[in-house]
Amino acid sequence: MSRKRRVAVLGATGTVGQRFISLLAGHPWFEISALTTSERNVGKRYGDVAHWLVPGGVPEAVADVKLEPTRSELDADICFSALPPDAASEAEAALAKAGHHVFSNVKTHRMDDDVPLIIAEVNPEHAKALEVQRRRRGWTGSIVTNGNCSAIGFALAAAPLHKSFGIERVVVTTLQALSGASYPGVASLDALDNVVPFIAEEEEKMEQETKKFLGAWNGQRFVPAEFVFSAHCNRVSVRDGHTDTVSMSLRGSPSVAEVKERMREFRGRPQELALPTAPKRPIIVREERDRPQPLIDRDVEGGMAAVVGRVQEDAVLGIRYVVLTHNTIRGAAGASVLNAELLQAEGCLP
Amino acid sequence: MSRKRRVAVLGATGTVGQRFISLLAGHPWFEISALTTSERNVGKRYGDVAHWLVPGGVPEAVADVKLEPTRSELDADICFSALPPDAASEAEAALAKAGHHVFSNVKTHRMDDDVPLIIAEVNPEHAKALEVQRRRRGWTGSIVTNGNCSAIGFALAAAPLHKSFGIERVVVTTLQALSGASYPGVASLDALDNVVPFIAEEEEKMEQETKKFLGAWNGQRFVPAEFVFSAHCNRVSVRDGHTDTVSMSLRGSPSVAEVKERMREFRGRPQELALPTAPKRPIIVREERDRPQPLIDRDVEGGMAAVVGRVQEDAVLGIRYVVLTHNTIRGAAGASVLNAELLQAEGCLP
Amino acid sequence: MSRKRRVAVLGATGTVGQRFISLLAGHPWFEISALTTSERNVGKRYGDVAHWLVPGGVPEAVADVKLEPTRSELDADICFSALPPDAASEAEAALAKAGHHVFSNVKTHRMDDDVPLIIAEVNPEHAKALEVQRRRRGWTGSIVTNGNCSAIGFALAAAPLHKSFGIERVVVTTLQALSGASYPGVASLDALDNVVPFIAEEEEKMEQETKKFLGAWNGQRFVPAEFVFSAHCNRVSVRDGHTDTVSMSLRGSPSVAEVKERMREFRGRPQELALPTAPKRPIIVREERDRPQPLIDRDVEGGMAAVVGRVQEDAVLGIRYVVLTHNTIRGAAGASVLNAELLQAEGCLP
Amino acid sequence: MSRKRRVAVLGATGTVGQRFISLLAGHPWFEISALTTSERNVGKRYGDVAHWLVPGGVPEAVADVKLEPTRSELDADICFSALPPDAASEAEAALAKAGHHVFSNVKTHRMDDDVPLIIAEVNPEHAKALEVQRRRRGWTGSIVTNGNCSAIGFALAAAPLHKSFGIERVVVTTLQALSGASYPGVASLDALDNVVPFIAEEEEKMEQETKKFLGAWNGQRFVPAEFVFSAHCNRVSVRDGHTDTVSMSLRGSPSVAEVKERMREFRGRPQELALPTAPKRPIIVREERDRPQPLIDRDVEGGMAAVVGRVQEDAVLGIRYVVLTHNTIRGAAGASVLNAELLQAEGCLP
Repeated sequence: MSRKRRVAVLGATGTVGQRFISLLAGHPWFEISALTTSERNVGKRYGDVAHWLVPGGVPEAVADVKLEPTRSELDADICFSALPPDAASEAEAALAKAGHHVFSNVKTHRMDDDVPLIIAEVNPEHAKALEVQRRRRGWTGSIVTNGNCSAIGFALAAAPLHKSFGIERVVVTTLQALSGASYPGVASLDALDNVVPFIAEEEEKMEQETKKFLGAWNGQRFVPAEFVFSAHCNRVSVRDGHTDTVSMSLRGSPSVAEVKERMREFRGRPQELALPTAPKRPIIVREERDRPQPLIDRDVEGGMAAVVGRVQEDAVLGIRYVVLTHNTIRGAAGASVLNAELLQAEGCLP
Repeated sequence: MSRKRRVAVLGATGTVGQRFISLLAGHPWFEISALTTSERNVGKRYGDVAHWLVPGGVPEAVADVKLEPTRSELDADICFSALPPDAASEAEAALAKAGHHVFSNVKTHRMDDDVPLIIAEVNPEHAKALEVQRRRRGWTGSIVTNGNCSAIGFALAAAPLHKSFGIERVVVTTLQALSGASYPGVASLDALDNVVPFIAEEEEKMEQETKKFLGAWNGQRFVPAEFVFSAHCNRVSVRDGHTDTVSMSLRGSPSVAEVKERMREFRGRPQELALPTAPKRPIIVREERDRPQPLIDRDVEGGMAAVVGRVQEDAVLGIRYVVLTHNTIRGAAGASVLNAELLQAEGCLP
Repeated sequence: MSRKRRVAVLGATGTVGQRFISLLAGHPWFEISALTTSERNVGKRYGDVAHWLVPGGVPEAVADVKLEPTRSELDADICFSALPPDAASEAEAALAKAGHHVFSNVKTHRMDDDVPLIIAEVNPEHAKALEVQRRRRGWTGSIVTNGNCSAIGFALAAAPLHKSFGIERVVVTTLQALSGASYPGVASLDALDNVVPFIAEEEEKMEQETKKFLGAWNGQRFVPAEFVFSAHCNRVSVRDGHTDTVSMSLRGSPSVAEVKERMREFRGRPQELALPTAPKRPIIVREERDRPQPLIDRDVEGGMAAVVGRVQEDAVLGIRYVVLTHNTIRGAAGASVLNAELLQAEGCLP
Repeated sequence: MSRKRRVAVLGATGTVGQRFISLLAGHPWFEISALTTSERNVGKRYGDVAHWLVPGGVPEAVADVKLEPTRSELDADICFSALPPDAASEAEAALAKAGHHVFSNVKTHRMDDDVPLIIAEVNPEHAKALEVQRRRRGWTGSIVTNGNCSAIGFALAAAPLHKSFGIERVVVTTLQALSGASYPGVASLDALDNVVPFIAEEEEKMEQETKKFLGAWNGQRFVPAEFVFSAHCNRVSVRDGHTDTVSMSLRGSPSVAEVKERMREFRGRPQELALPTAPKRPIIVREERDRPQPLIDRDVEGGMAAVVGRVQEDAVLGIRYVVLTHNTIRGAAGASVLNAELLQAEGCLP
């Protein structure tokens, strides 16, 4: 690859936009050519506008970039979208129509019949839907989405179990980080010394998207995986890193050892292709009795791995474990960048 | 009751000991006559030794009390025990043998065959075991225990469901407060910006004790309730108040409305007897989509109620809800004081 | 007083409005007759609109109150104002003109030439300005203000020192609570694991208001106290309670013992009149080496006392100490209620 | 330098020990040859014993290292000491006597007449004291100390001001991070929703050490800088990063612009020698009104810079500013490693 592809970050100032920038700074294949924002900040320096919260500060290369509006004439082949849902529903389709390849972190198109919802290790074959998408919509570009942070975290660790055994039923409780609510997001007066046992639409998204991730593309549309799913979603006082407790029944009642083995040996196309953002091990299984913990485990493999612990028999459903993922990296910007690398490597981004 | 009964708090300086003192200050039936502590603090003023953390400061009446060792000659009819487990295993039996009525918050005797483990609203009839206890052990006093904070919180809200329908299977995830680990307990470096998905022995205690609470006394021994139980216990950055997410299957598959109704109408002996520490409503069911929250709900009814919310159908097990209890009041000291009031009112403390 | 006076809370849903309601529930002299809010919530139930964060929940008596707009025909003799500054600048004067006695927690009129800025124990004589205010403005009602939370906390503890010795120079650093920024206020992503060394306008307000509190009313206007003042204001991750470190030079270089003595013996009109909201001791001086702490000391005397500790010699300026006050009680709503009690008791509210 | 020098970390499991290991992993000049610990952990794997809290996890190269006791026969030229003070007072002198070069983060020898207390950019010339130290004590090795975290942070930013103008008087308030209290250190029940306005011995250390840093070596002993100093030290709920508010009088009353200029242009020997751990800019001056903040600024320059903001005129003392330093990197392990690099480069470690 002699020249880097030009990429834009749409909605560049928010918490996910910042993660996109942080992951794209120094990327071997991509270079940032445009940053977009809402109307009132257009024309300002990125460094003056972003309330930057990612450790290490604003990368120097982007601090001086002038913010642009999100419009279809952007100078970029690939667009990473962290737009607010309202803005996304207009802009992303227009960009795809104009030939841009949009990798969207936004919920707007995730459940569309012809829009792939991809975790690069889990369901790369869903990219085949792009042919239908382009034909049906008359686009020269495309939209690929990457799912809600909770859905990605759960589905990545569960994928080898579903592939090997088949999931029947799942009860999952999430302990989700504050950064998932964007900025300003959760008020400190609600977060300090508190738990909020509710996140709007999260339980629904987690169920629907997990079933799409683990389902199939039949050439015409996505066929969701069939299992029974119940999620309790909670917000806790953690900056980054969603922790899930999982109780699950699997076909054939595999042993704890088999479950760990399947998780540990799990590899996908990103690992085969050695993509720049791919974790070496997508799932890390720990044996300590008190891991994973967000503080200690969220940054492992650059924040791109699911860290699993406490894999045990579950009296009610058969298997239980705890899984942690970095919600704004593996669960958002990192997932999207990895999807773009995958499709680029597979030749799907003409 | 013309005269108050004399009560001691054993292990008076810890977080539960402080809650005992706070609840007993100004109690209409009981007056504090002794506070005990470990050897190195004996003889010191309570106010000088306790690292007091309950809002409002040390009650004036106890600040000047001289700390005593825990020995069987205590000047007290009733002893509330917040001893460390090691100290409790020697001291509590000796006190009961010497004629004291021990209400223990300690795990040591909870699962003993002839020691009642009581939630006053749930299984007051277990107090009948005291006859066997006294006869078999040759005691003139007695030991009554009140369970682990997580077990109490779960069992109180689940009791009317078990009585009305019968619990079959439960998956529960706890988000437990820091005060449950006593003082100094959890290091701030482990608590800030973190979740710890493990609490030693907690999941086992929660299962065993819940089954004893909801089980029966057959005249000779306790017969545990029969259901399948799985608990995931987590520590989160909250001062007080344990939050549980519950998914549960009940016999006869009652509706959400029936479940709420049974919880709301639930009353026990403490309410019939209008005991001083009894909440008017042991279970409060809220309809807001984002409640209960520790910060807002833990102090309702003086911290003695279980606050339930988000009662819904559960795709996997039938019914789901969230329940919050104040872990050092309803889940510890308050439960014990209420047990003592109950047995006193029922004439079981000669 | 045979009948309670009717009082309104203006801007009733915010953090200070909630504190007003909490303090006025069950008040012996005042009863809430109206709660006002911004346009979009008018007509709704208070309990449905307020994001209530004060421990103990919404007082039952106000949960069903219908919210009104802030207009001069309010059914109330006394109005406690927690309005946003914009709304206040229009509404408060109109209310005063219409005959209401406004006790405002808002900055709008604090530095006006004829508006008293009062801490009830410190400068009650400033109420004499009301005659000029009414005459000059043609009002039958009045406006009395109570200062910024940081200014009140500092000035209350410093008042006996200024009166006894005279302050010459002060360097103060504040560690301010999150509730001072109202709701939603500080984002949790800015508060968790962080300090923000800046609060807009706070340092200026603290200086100006402190000088007005400790200054004089000369019959025509307020003459500010003369000393040199430097404040460094910081936001820290504490819910309630502002902590100040103070280094100060006093005329005559009093000893540490004299400083403590003057603070301890300090009493004002609220104590002489035994006003309902008055703390018995406005300033509590502690001798422990690590007090005051917000968690332990903010609620002492119902949150109405300044708690002082670590009074020592200061190598640079002579005297140093730490002072803590509850920012939304002593520093806001409680200060305002106490001012109203004072003026009512002194016959200044015809 | 053809071969790396062998270095030991003494007291390797604590929070500072972990930072040493983290900074030495992959160091171009040093390689870890020994890790020491207290008696009960000797012989165990480092990875099994350390409660690792530095982001990124235990470096692989040290996870399998067997822990040794701290004794004078250690296989290491250079010893970085993070020992507890008791252990240090015996061990460090014995090691120096046996020919090791000890770079100690412990308070034990900091104020000794012939032990240099060095900030590499500030007073590298104090290393000359090592000749006296070796002669007087008959050592072939040496001890160099690096000061308390608060003292280093303050002195680094103040150094160019003292050198250019001369400090006369300082009032400083610190808002110190939890990691400064080591592990387990501050209990979460004391840290959550709280400030502790006291740290044992901190204010005294900060004064004494700052005066030694900014003082002179006269060939025989250290002559402390002469200025008047008052520090208020507080613990706040922040993981890493000490924030200080500073009010200061300087000789000649320099302008704000001059102060910023001197800070910005400040460079020392580590920058001249381009030492591996040296920050490019030892002091970074920011112009935003709300910086520095621990969350955003503590990791700048690898945690080795002092970040200064809000440089302004101070009404009382002339100049004021806020300074932030990473307490376990710049204020502890990083300072020590930089000192070792400096003395190695200067040929002082034969």
